[in-house]
Amino acid sequence: MGELQASFAAELERFRELTRQIKQYEEILATIYWDMRTGAPRKGIELRSEAYGTLSAETFRLSTSPEMGDLLERLTQPDVLAALGAVDRKQAEEFHKDYERNRKLPPELYREYVVLTSQAESAWEEAKANNDYPGFAPYLEKIIEYNRKFIELWGIKGSPYDTLLDMYEPGMTTSELDRLFGELRKRLVPLADAIAARGDKPDTAFLQGTFDVVSQKSFSKFILQQMGFDFDAGRLDESVHPFATGLSPGDVRITTRYLPHDLTSALFGSIHEGGHALYEQNIAPELAGTPLCTGTSMGIHESQSRLWENMVGRSLGFWKRYFPDLQKQFPGQLDGVTAEQFYRGINVVEPSLIRIEADELTYNLHIMIRYEIEKMIFNDGLTAAELPAVWNAKYKEALGIEPGSDAEGVLQDVHWSGGSFGYFPSYSLGNMYAAQIMNKAKALRPDLEERIADGELAPLKEWLTEGVYRHGKMKNPSEIIEDITGEPLKSSYLCDYLERKYREIYRLGE
Amino acid sequence: MGELQASFAAELERFRELTRQIKQYEEILATIYWDMRTGAPRKGIELRSEAYGTLSAETFRLSTSPEMGDLLERLTQPDVLAALGAVDRKQAEEFHKDYERNRKLPPELYREYVVLTSQAESAWEEAKANNDYPGFAPYLEKIIEYNRKFIELWGIKGSPYDTLLDMYEPGMTTSELDRLFGELRKRLVPLADAIAARGDKPDTAFLQGTFDVVSQKSFSKFILQQMGFDFDAGRLDESVHPFATGLSPGDVRITTRYLPHDLTSALFGSIHEGGHALYEQNIAPELAGTPLCTGTSMGIHESQSRLWENMVGRSLGFWKRYFPDLQKQFPGQLDGVTAEQFYRGINVVEPSLIRIEADELTYNLHIMIRYEIEKMIFNDGLTAAELPAVWNAKYKEALGIEPGSDAEGVLQDVHWSGGSFGYFPSYSLGNMYAAQIMNKAKALRPDLEERIADGELAPLKEWLTEGVYRHGKMKNPSEIIEDITGEPLKSSYLCDYLERKYREIYRLGE
Repeated sequence: MGELQASFAAELERFRELTRQIKQYEEILATIYWDMRTGAPRKGIELRSEAYGTLSAETFRLSTSPEMGDLLERLTQPDVLAALGAVDRKQAEEFHKDYERNRKLPPELYREYVVLTSQAESAWEEAKANNDYPGFAPYLEKIIEYNRKFIELWGIKGSPYDTLLDMYEPGMTTSELDRLFGELRKRLVPLADAIAARGDKPDTAFLQGTFDVVSQKSFSKFILQQMGFDFDAGRLDESVHPFATGLSPGDVRITTRYLPHDLTSALFGSIHEGGHALYEQNIAPELAGTPLCTGTSMGIHESQSRLWENMVGRSLGFWKRYFPDLQKQFPGQLDGVTAEQFYRGINVVEPSLIRIEADELTYNLHIMIRYEIEKMIFNDGLTAAELPAVWNAKYKEALGIEPGSDAEGVLQDVHWSGGSFGYFPSYSLGNMYAAQIMNKAKALRPDLEERIADGELAPLKEWLTEGVYRHGKMKNPSEIIEDITGEPLKSSYLCDYLERKYREIYRLGE
Repeated sequence: MGELQASFAAELERFRELTRQIKQYEEILATIYWDMRTGAPRKGIELRSEAYGTLSAETFRLSTSPEMGDLLERLTQPDVLAALGAVDRKQAEEFHKDYERNRKLPPELYREYVVLTSQAESAWEEAKANNDYPGFAPYLEKIIEYNRKFIELWGIKGSPYDTLLDMYEPGMTTSELDRLFGELRKRLVPLADAIAARGDKPDTAFLQGTFDVVSQKSFSKFILQQMGFDFDAGRLDESVHPFATGLSPGDVRITTRYLPHDLTSALFGSIHEGGHALYEQNIAPELAGTPLCTGTSMGIHESQSRLWENMVGRSLGFWKRYFPDLQKQFPGQLDGVTAEQFYRGINVVEPSLIRIEADELTYNLHIMIRYEIEKMIFNDGLTAAELPAVWNAKYKEALGIEPGSDAEGVLQDVHWSGGSFGYFPSYSLGNMYAAQIMNKAKALRPDLEERIADGELAPLKEWLTEGVYRHGKMKNPSEIIEDITGEPLKSSYLCDYLERKYREIYRLGE
């Protein structure tokens, strides 16, 4: 050991110990969260939320403690940083950034907020079930107020909303998003218009009916196994709002919801969360137990769920391989339908009210609406009470339809009840990342779709592991996309992909 | 506020805050434990165990910290103690006792032990499944060594084993147990012998067969609802070894295991754990969130599981009411059987190898064997390697039969893998408490069995809530039994009950 190394050895050891403890507490908190969403008895939620709040606050305290500050000050000195191994260095840098951000929040304020959002999510579930926005609005207003306070404490960069965006996609700004979304709008709205003008929509009659929920579960599980989801390192459960949570690479849990009258909702929900899960299950073992053992950003995470859900799961090659299995799972219900017809049926483009059920094309319009509303809340002072009217007006304007109730309008998403403002743009960023990555995959392997049609999903998973999954948080989003594709993020790949796909399905220009 | 009150107000507030945090961490730990036992993916167990160990150690640290010591020193001064409210006073006394005990253990030693037992339980599950005692023995030997160290650090009272007993049944000693078990043996062994001599055992042919597991689940759930188990404040799941855990009165979780060829195992397992659950669900709301919100001792806890399982669930009145429902649940499988025949069939007395499947009478012999082995381990230096031979010899001696494999011998119980030495006697203590309490219930309400035959279980539950459940840890075991029955614990009520029951079933003396 050199002289320099010896001088910080004790600090490094203590830093590793402390970050490990923080990661362990985060793992426990995520397990408790999963439990509250999947099956914890109703009457225990209030006390559990308080316990969750206390441990969250303690985790927060550990990462903002004077001890952590001292350790970080020492370890981020340029000569020390240069002498650290790659994992320790990245950890020190990441913690330093979080430390600078988090120490600005009073711990008690943070604890109150965690308890509030934990209770708000249950209140949201109830409000959604009863179409009772007024029952949820007081929670939402409080959550917004807390976030406004946080933004002030953190310090505004660009606009207040930029401060929130940076949490989910480091470096992302309102102006950058305005540009990217502007480009998307310019090409995707005409495409949607051309499809609407075309008139003849693919047959979807065979998707109507009642599909046994037990069979739906079996088929979701089968497809997840085909994707390479490891059931010894994860599980599939049910919740009102589907989610994925990586507790550790050895325990990644996803949820879905089964609708008896909808064959595709649970199926594509499972594939979507399965994409998140493949990411978390395949992070390099040497990162396990460290805070770097997680996805590098929400945008990159969503790129993987959406790549698997849409670019694989809604592709013709995929259904050439798996449609016969689906027919077997629902005997008599899909007779006389071909894989090609099924493919066209699950890719119908149609303005709709529910984001998670939207097609790949109009999905981005749902995201733009949420993005604009979030900007209005934090940059222009929009209140919780005003939300339903703004929501409905924007749906009318962008999609030409209006929700019949708040349950299928402003109450449809869980995100705001958990305080996740700034998260929604990640979905469209994910679509853009995914298209750019998939474009590269096809350039490297022109017969990729034929290989998928033969059921060969493993090579794709392995290539994504190599380029994305195994790195965890060791690479930034921009490093991930540039190292794989040789370019920064561009909107054109998504537009190209959607135009090619839908021109073929809708026979545009024929 | 008086002058004295004012002088300790700050300490009291901090004490309440700290004990609340400890209770919250315990609630989280119990949820994680439940998760690891009911469905956590195999590959995540190792990291989860470590996280569990870290939070356990922190909880332990909080309850043994110098701050806690200072608070307790102040609050347990006689004049202060006398000025506290009942709940605060009891909490201060209980914590003081635990503090004196726990501060003798080095925190690092304790953390190692928690991680060890957490991993050992998974190792035990595997060893039991593969009949691989040598695979489990190294864990067991280490757990024994830690406990020997703990006993030394805590200080030996009477014998080393007494030190462990006191943890589960405060005040209980080897000499007291030797006396109680001696009395039981004196009356129960002749009873078992008389039954064996009688020869003609009740018909059990109708218990053979394959009983649909889904129907078993439905029926278990139905019976739990009848008992008053609140499914909005609890859940029923599956695990290798059934258990109950009260996370809070609003979230009490029980597990059972369903065997397709055994109708009664899951059913009586569910009623047993349901008895534990009724206790935890009905603790007074004002104790919720405090460390007093739990059963007062393992013996009293077991008295409630065994009262419901045996004295209610294996009574003739109970089956007069519910046997027709059972018949409906398994159409065609129990035709031509009467409630009385079923009652006699589920009360067959027969020496058997598996404790949790034993009849009410020989069950106590299973407990005595474990009690004797535990005494040998801690008072006479018996090693893990020697356990299987001793186990088998004792079964041969006491029950006349020998396990064909370790899986149905020394590996059958989860307790030792979790380090719960000194727990087993609680089961027979529970039987004795239960018989004494039930004797009083029948004295107060001579038509109790007829009321149960009418499906009226609520009055019994309410009476037990009044006498036992609502008090949580506010009363000691001896206060509970004396306040209800006017007497200290006696072995004679259990002997009277068993003699009466089995003389009738086996028509002894006729």
